[in-house]
This record gives sequence, C-alpha cells and structure tokens, in this order.
Amino acid sequence: MEIYEELKHILLQVKEKTPLIHHITNYVTVNDCANIVLALGGSPVMADDEAEVEEMVSIASALVINIGTLNSRTINSMILAGKKANELNIPIILDPVGVGATSLRTKTAKLLLENICFDVIRGNLSEIKVLAGLSSKTRGVDVDIEEKDEIEGRKKLGEELSKKLNSVIAITGKVDSISYDDKTYLIRNGHPMLSQVTGTGCMCSSLIGTFLGTREDKHLGAVLGVLTMGVSGERAYKAVMDKDLGTGSFRAAIIDSVSTITPEIIHEYAKITEK
Amino acid sequence: MEIYEELKHILLQVKEKTPLIHHITNYVTVNDCANIVLALGGSPVMADDEAEVEEMVSIASALVINIGTLNSRTINSMILAGKKANELNIPIILDPVGVGATSLRTKTAKLLLENICFDVIRGNLSEIKVLAGLSSKTRGVDVDIEEKDEIEGRKKLGEELSKKLNSVIAITGKVDSISYDDKTYLIRNGHPMLSQVTGTGCMCSSLIGTFLGTREDKHLGAVLGVLTMGVSGERAYKAVMDKDLGTGSFRAAIIDSVSTITPEIIHEYAKITEK
Amino acid sequence: MEIYEELKHILLQVKEKTPLIHHITNYVTVNDCANIVLALGGSPVMADDEAEVEEMVSIASALVINIGTLNSRTINSMILAGKKANELNIPIILDPVGVGATSLRTKTAKLLLENICFDVIRGNLSEIKVLAGLSSKTRGVDVDIEEKDEIEGRKKLGEELSKKLNSVIAITGKVDSISYDDKTYLIRNGHPMLSQVTGTGCMCSSLIGTFLGTREDKHLGAVLGVLTMGVSGERAYKAVMDKDLGTGSFRAAIIDSVSTITPEIIHEYAKITEK
Repeated sequence: MEIYEELKHILLQVKEKTPLIHHITNYVTVNDCANIVLALGGSPVMADDEAEVEEMVSIASALVINIGTLNSRTINSMILAGKKANELNIPIILDPVGVGATSLRTKTAKLLLENICFDVIRGNLSEIKVLAGLSSKTRGVDVDIEEKDEIEGRKKLGEELSKKLNSVIAITGKVDSISYDDKTYLIRNGHPMLSQVTGTGCMCSSLIGTFLGTREDKHLGAVLGVLTMGVSGERAYKAVMDKDLGTGSFRAAIIDSVSTITPEIIHEYAKITEK
Repeated sequence: MEIYEELKHILLQVKEKTPLIHHITNYVTVNDCANIVLALGGSPVMADDEAEVEEMVSIASALVINIGTLNSRTINSMILAGKKANELNIPIILDPVGVGATSLRTKTAKLLLENICFDVIRGNLSEIKVLAGLSSKTRGVDVDIEEKDEIEGRKKLGEELSKKLNSVIAITGKVDSISYDDKTYLIRNGHPMLSQVTGTGCMCSSLIGTFLGTREDKHLGAVLGVLTMGVSGERAYKAVMDKDLGTGSFRAAIIDSVSTITPEIIHEYAKITEK
Repeated sequence: MEIYEELKHILLQVKEKTPLIHHITNYVTVNDCANIVLALGGSPVMADDEAEVEEMVSIASALVINIGTLNSRTINSMILAGKKANELNIPIILDPVGVGATSLRTKTAKLLLENICFDVIRGNLSEIKVLAGLSSKTRGVDVDIEEKDEIEGRKKLGEELSKKLNSVIAITGKVDSISYDDKTYLIRNGHPMLSQVTGTGCMCSSLIGTFLGTREDKHLGAVLGVLTMGVSGERAYKAVMDKDLGTGSFRAAIIDSVSTITPEIIHEYAKITEK
C-alpha cells in the first residue's frame, strides 16, 4: 500500500535529519514531550521568553505551541514565535489544551488563530469543537466524549475547519480523524490506558511536530504522529500487561516504544482507513 | 471494622465520579501530581494564571494549593482561586512546602491562612510547627525530625491547630497523624525509600485532594490519602526489592501501585489506630 | 591509586552530610535533577523568586544555576543568589544550557560570569566555546561535535578558561575533560544512549553540585560528578539492553544506578586519565 511507503520515508527522514523542535509549552508534561522527541530521533528545545523565542524558532525545524498552564507572560511569546515561523515557512503545530474550559484559553486560542497560520492543529473532540465555534464548553483537559455515529460528524467538522483555517485538523480519541481539505484519514489504534497518563495528547502533538520538522507532507506527517502514539500505546500495554504493572510503568513503556519503533512495526499495527 | 467500609466507599466514589482536581502547584513535582491523580481515578488540571484560576476552580471538584517554587505571580492566583473555592464550597487542600525556610514562604502561608479556609493542611512536622507559630525554622523541604515520644506532641499540635483553623491537620512522617477537632488517627504505613523520591509529600496532598473531590467526609478523606501513599510506598518497595532496583524504578512503582490499589489492598496493609 | 581514595571520601561525605542543593533551573528537567540529588544522598531545593533566593541559598550547601528555559523573571534571581553564595563561600555551579543559541542566553551567561565567581562550569564543547568567546553558534541544546584530535584542543580550551575565570571547566561529550588551572582529567565513561534522554547534562551538573556541597576539593568533586553520570549511563544501559527496552526505561535506570552506586562500583568502571 503506497501510504506505508510514504510514512516509512517520513519516519526515516527524522532519523536522518534530527530536526530541532522548538516548544512553547506547559510545565506539566514538558519533560515527556522532550523525551518523546528524542525517542523518535529529533532534538527538542524549550524556550518561552519574549526576548529569545524569535531567534530560537529561526534555527528550528518546527514549532509546537501548547496552551496548557497558559500564562500572560508566554502568550506574547507564542505570537512572536508563531509570526516569525510563518515568515520563515517553518511548520507550526497548535495543541489547544483545555480550550473552552476558561475564557483565557478560548480568547488566547482565537488570538493565536488570528495571528498565526498553523500547519496542524491537534485536539480532542471538545477542544476542536470550541475552535470551530460549535461549542464553548470543555471540562478540564481530559474529556473525550466519543460516539460511533460521530465519525461522520468528525469528518465534516475536521474538513470544514481545515478549509477555513488551511490547517490539518487532527481530532484524537477512541477513533482518530485527521482531515485536510476534502480528505480524512481514520486511525483505530491506541489503548484506553493512554488516557490514564498525563500528557499523551501533548506528546502526540510533539510527535507530529517532529515529523513536520522533516518538511515532508503535512497531512501524512500528522497521520504518522497520531499513528505512532496509538501504536506505542498498544505496544506499551503489551509490555506491562503480563507483569501486572500499572500506569507508572506504562508511561515509561510509551517512551520505550517510540524509541524502538520502525516502519515495519508501524505497518504491522496500523489500522488506517480513508474516509 | 467500620472505618474500612467508609474508606472503601470513598475510594470507589473516586472511580465513579472522576473528580476534577485543580492544582496551583510547583513545577518540580507537577507531573507526578497529575499522574497520581489519574492513577487513582481522578482528573487533574493545572492552571495558575490570575486570569483563569477562578473560572477553572469553579468547574473543579477540589483545589490543591502547593507553595513549592512559589513566585510572586502565582501568590495572587492562589488567593483568588482559594476565595472562589470557599465561596462555592469546593474543598481546598494546602501543602505548605518549605514554609519556614524563607520569609516569603512563611508570609505567604500566613496570607493564605488569613484569606482562605482550608479543609485539609498536609505537611511534615517542621512545616506544621511553623504554621502553628511554634517554630520558624525549616531546612529546605525534606526534613522530618521524628521521635517516638513526639506522638503525644503531634496529637496535641494537630488538634490545637485543627481547632484554630477549622481544618484537618495531616502531619506526615515515620508515623503519620491526621487530626480533626478532638480526634486523631495515627498511620504506621510507608517506607523510608519514599523520602528518597522527590514529591511524595506533594503527591500525598494530591491524593487527599482527589478523595476530597468526592465530597465525602474530609477527615476520612485525608486519612485515606495518607494511607494510600503509605501503602503504595510499601507495595512499590516490594516491587523493586527483588530486582535490586533503585529509586528511579521505585518512583514508577509508586504510581503503578496507586493505579492498581483496591479497598481490599488498603484493608490488608493498613495500620491505623485512633489516638 | 590515590585518586580513588579521594573520590571515595567525597562520595561517602555526601551520604554523611546530606548537603542541601539549591537550584535555580529550567522546568524541563527539574524533576530529574531533584531525583538525582536525592538518589546520590543529597537534598534538593528549588526556589527562583527574587524575594526568597538569597535566604534559601544561605541555608544551602551549594547552588546550581542552569539557564535552560531562561526567563527575564529569574535572571535577577540568579544574580542575587549567586552574589549571596559568593559572599558566604557557598560553592556555585553553572550549567550554560544552550548558550550561543540566542543572544538572551549569551548575554545572560556573560552577565552571570561578570557578577558571580563559579566554582565549576559544566557544558558541552559548543557551549564552553561560546563562553570562551571562540564561537557564537550553538544549535539548540543537544549538539556535541566530537573529534578525536580535539582532546588537545579541549585541554587547552578548558585550562585557559579555567585560569581566566578561576573555575573548574568540565566539558562533557564522548570524552569528558575536566580542567582546573594546569591540570586536566579525561574521562572515557558514558554511553551514547545518554544523549537520547533529556536532561542528562543538567543531571550531571546537579551531581557536581551535590559533591561540591560536601566542601571537599572542587576539581575532584567535578570529576566525580561527571564520572558518576558516565558510570550510571553504562550501568543503566546494561540494565535495559537484555530486556530490549528503550529510552523510557533507560531514564529510570540512570536514577536507579545513581541510587545504588558505591565507591567500589566507581572504581570498577572508571576510565580516568590525567592529560
């Protein structure tokens, strides 16, 4: 199947190019984000001060903006870095953590969308609905209401928002949908245990950022980021289930899995369909 | 024994209600706090900007305020969130990390106590003594001077401070005492290795916050939080001792243990007495 | 060999004195730094607000200043804490993370060097070159260009900078060089996997800080810090290689290794030479 050849190519490009991924992100999951970028073969750098973000992003291969633990000091840094990245054609990923939970997050997300063109936006269904203006409610950061008959709705939501913002829209959950323009891929990988570890969403966005740092196709880069997270969740579960271990071991096993992933493993596990 | 039925009920309520636990906390142990809340069955959210803490705490089931890596920007956020939580009858836990080590921490703790009514305050003996005005010295954040003949003193200290502040006072150490009004429970669980991992005190406060998020009895909620930490320390030690592993593995094993804990395990391990 | 007796003495002094190590550091690797200090037998405290750093450092045994995720709020805290530590003869370690990547980091490093006398400065080759004024380029924070014929150059660079700043200069990489005045030790321990985990450089600086907190010889303290990291990398690799595990398990195994290290293990693994 041709898509696997393309995904394989992107994965190997990361190992070859070691893209530098600049993050402006929250202090809860930042260490896991750094480690997952390294595990994949990229190089992470975290910098959030107004005085250095433009310079830092200028030497980066991609920028990840994540609004968890948002604070007034870093909002302007996000805008500055994002504008500079757009100017230099450096890919940018937005993770709108908890948008809808407070007006600060909603306003900031809107401000970011007005000032920056994002290559990929990844969130759960409620976060993406808020961005699309369809909803204004999010309960914290971990909710993901999933219904089978919503797949059609997700495709519609993702594709419409994609066209409006000219971004790839990745909606992660039990079934993930990654839409760009009129094309949506569905991924049925992952494991429920992923929702019992903090930051698996943030890590997924960092993986997408790392793949986009290769400057390959952004739609497939986003697909591969979501797929790598899902497959790693399944492999991590296998690693801990026999040993009767819990979520602490599972968390380390996610990173283990990313650090040992190969195109063959991706191919073996992947459950992708085009909708 | 009736207390185990009540503790079992609280533990199961967490799994049923998935309480959202808002933290304003330090950047050292924040990831472990988020993961331990998830491991127990709650949902963590971290937010510390003045512009969003009142809204965030309004949708939360409990608030945990932790003064490690205190900075001037977040002190006002703590006050705003605490007042809002009091107004809405949302339970609040204080972890006065390192109070007494610097005048900033001591002043801030006093400011918090003057403005906010806390349901539970958890600290080590030196921290609680500072809050009670009996001492002004703390050496950093890890000290816990423990003497057998101090149990009587702890009961007195805890109960007096409890009455003064109308809070449950949890003093953790080799023997933990959890006092409310004229009643003190002593817990003799835990393992010395817990003091070789950063944040086990913070994590204990987050567990208490999660139990209080169920809106069950606050004294028993605090007892169950301390007990869960102690029992998890013992189980984590069992998990690593045979394999000649160290504190890195022990840290993951603590989270493993919380994520697999049951009322039966609590009952089997618990060493609680009423003083 | 006499050096091992001295290293053994310093290692055992940590266990005996439990030095309190004050950190002003980044939010990416701060948890690992705290855990590695505890694993070694020290006690970490993290505090970065202007209002408390002078008081905190006054009760500390050593101060570690790390400029990762630098922000304008903490630069002045670093200056205040550093000056106070100098005044009180408390050892100070500088980790100039990413210096050269942005002018903020380069300016700040210079400002720190102008205002504070550091006992040890630890960085990779490109960072140390920037400090020496030989280069102004760093690509992010993970680069380490290593060439065999550079050992002579490292010795020269380290010793010249050491004399200029009156600091021990530790340049870590494939071969580590630790120079003070006219004397340079080379260490050939470590494992390539160390560069696939974030913060192994920061952790190395924290280990050096912990050894300097004993108030023993600063050159040997720096040697022992670098050696402990290298040996722990080798032991961690042994722990995970048989199990086909990845970088998540390796990260925990580094801390495991530090927490179980003994003078005998150091002696068995160490590959030190004097250049």
